[in-house]
Amino acid sequence: MTRIVALTGGVGGAKLALGLDAVLAPEDLTLVVNTGDDFDHLGLHIAPDIDTLTYTLAGLANPELGWGRGDESWNCLQTLSTLGGETWFQLGDRDLALHLVRTQALKAGQRLSEVTTTLTRQLGIEATVLPMSDDPVRTHVETNAGRLSFQHYFVREQCEPRVEAIEFEGADTARAAAGVVEAIDDCDGVIICPSNPFLSVDPMLAIDELHTALRRTTAPVIAVSPIVGGAAIKGPTAKIMHELNLGTMADEIARHYGDLLDLFVLDELDKFLHGQLDVPTTVTQTVMRTQNDKEALARTCLAAVEQLRA
Amino acid sequence: MTRIVALTGGVGGAKLALGLDAVLAPEDLTLVVNTGDDFDHLGLHIAPDIDTLTYTLAGLANPELGWGRGDESWNCLQTLSTLGGETWFQLGDRDLALHLVRTQALKAGQRLSEVTTTLTRQLGIEATVLPMSDDPVRTHVETNAGRLSFQHYFVREQCEPRVEAIEFEGADTARAAAGVVEAIDDCDGVIICPSNPFLSVDPMLAIDELHTALRRTTAPVIAVSPIVGGAAIKGPTAKIMHELNLGTMADEIARHYGDLLDLFVLDELDKFLHGQLDVPTTVTQTVMRTQNDKEALARTCLAAVEQLRA
Repeated sequence: MTRIVALTGGVGGAKLALGLDAVLAPEDLTLVVNTGDDFDHLGLHIAPDIDTLTYTLAGLANPELGWGRGDESWNCLQTLSTLGGETWFQLGDRDLALHLVRTQALKAGQRLSEVTTTLTRQLGIEATVLPMSDDPVRTHVETNAGRLSFQHYFVREQCEPRVEAIEFEGADTARAAAGVVEAIDDCDGVIICPSNPFLSVDPMLAIDELHTALRRTTAPVIAVSPIVGGAAIKGPTAKIMHELNLGTMADEIARHYGDLLDLFVLDELDKFLHGQLDVPTTVTQTVMRTQNDKEALARTCLAAVEQLRA
Repeated sequence: MTRIVALTGGVGGAKLALGLDAVLAPEDLTLVVNTGDDFDHLGLHIAPDIDTLTYTLAGLANPELGWGRGDESWNCLQTLSTLGGETWFQLGDRDLALHLVRTQALKAGQRLSEVTTTLTRQLGIEATVLPMSDDPVRTHVETNAGRLSFQHYFVREQCEPRVEAIEFEGADTARAAAGVVEAIDDCDGVIICPSNPFLSVDPMLAIDELHTALRRTTAPVIAVSPIVGGAAIKGPTAKIMHELNLGTMADEIARHYGDLLDLFVLDELDKFLHGQLDVPTTVTQTVMRTQNDKEALARTCLAAVEQLRA
């Protein structure tokens, strides 16, 4: 009966989301997902973080790749290449179906939150999955190689350019998606998943309505560090911190979220930071290799929420 | 050195086009293709007759199905069905790539004729393939089950409703695609392939610029009957003729094209009609089972053109 809102981006966030989904009743879990990575590709609306979460919760994710589906074939992509089409973003044959249905629904006037509900329900997901916004917010990265849209930076250029600044185009006018503010207002705890703070969580915080709801709530807000022993489990978090002249230890993440947080969850590898930060900390194993790891971290987060509420 | 323009629709037309492609130099062959069957499906621009021709000329067609590619997989379609998407129009995984590239190019402002040239060249086709128009012309069928768009009639309803009238929405304002009128003006002969006159050829004739060019040319215009022994080789031609209260013999086709024709090519099965029509006729085997059949019919048509020019 602990109603949780979890903010999540890509693979790391999806792992904790899967843990939360296993230990909470579905009606008690709302997952708010970054859409700053969304983009149009080959005329399709691609929503990488929603899809990673959807495939993870539906048991369809590809654990090796960290994106897309496990049961995938690549015949369309292969043919695209023979036709001179764009192939830098790899779309599997089954994955394509999701993008086609979503794009068609959006063109027919549905909101992203509506079609996300339809698609997650269709795949048997019972928890509520909401995009952070139904309005377009697009992450752009200013780099030494020029201004790049997020997917061009992340996938096409494989995070190689040096990041100088990050912008969330559209965030200043975007509203939170229907249901997001209500879920935060009604919840017992907010968990910021171990996603990239700069690329996955900041786009959400850049939406005034969402940020205001997080500041307003009396429910505890806790974050799980995506940095363990000075490195990111996956992705360019530490590289970007270095490029932005930040330290690359977990304390920098806590400092980044500042007084939004009531608690910061550190990995055992970083226990030397315990009690050293401006925010209370708890130490646990945050690296999630197995389903047990995911559920254990979820339970630790829920216990922390309960303790903060007591 | 006989420059030919062939007007073609679906499978029957594509067979003769393949024969013409084999016996003519590529620079002497222009194929003008019906686009009345084009439609938007799942946000993609599908051009069934262009695709049937393209796959046939590229050696990629599926001879069993009569549409799509031979080397096909159906994983996207299968997944569409699990996601509640539309599956009545069967899109293969490799076929999808063509629609994605075309749709993207059209959205970027290219004309259908431009992207058709790009795609046919990319697949190694050297003859010129042109849509009848770069403007949208959409075939609708008035039936006892109401007004249906062509693909809804043809694929979804499998031609079951009784046809009362056929309309080509947009044809009255459509222009011929760039290159079509020039090809007709410069050619030595026009061949109307054995395609459905009512559904595949009439949309072309409904475009004033194209019809006028066909009337103006001094080059002979010949048509190959799509009706053999009172039946269509494939598709609903005879059924529609019956429903439109027309006879279902080949002479009705010649009558339909009227004085546009300089010669009508009858199948051996219909040789009793030879000399009985208002237009001169020639008799040959029009049923094309093998590659030899296709080339033989192409050669017969070319010989007829040469004879008429002499």
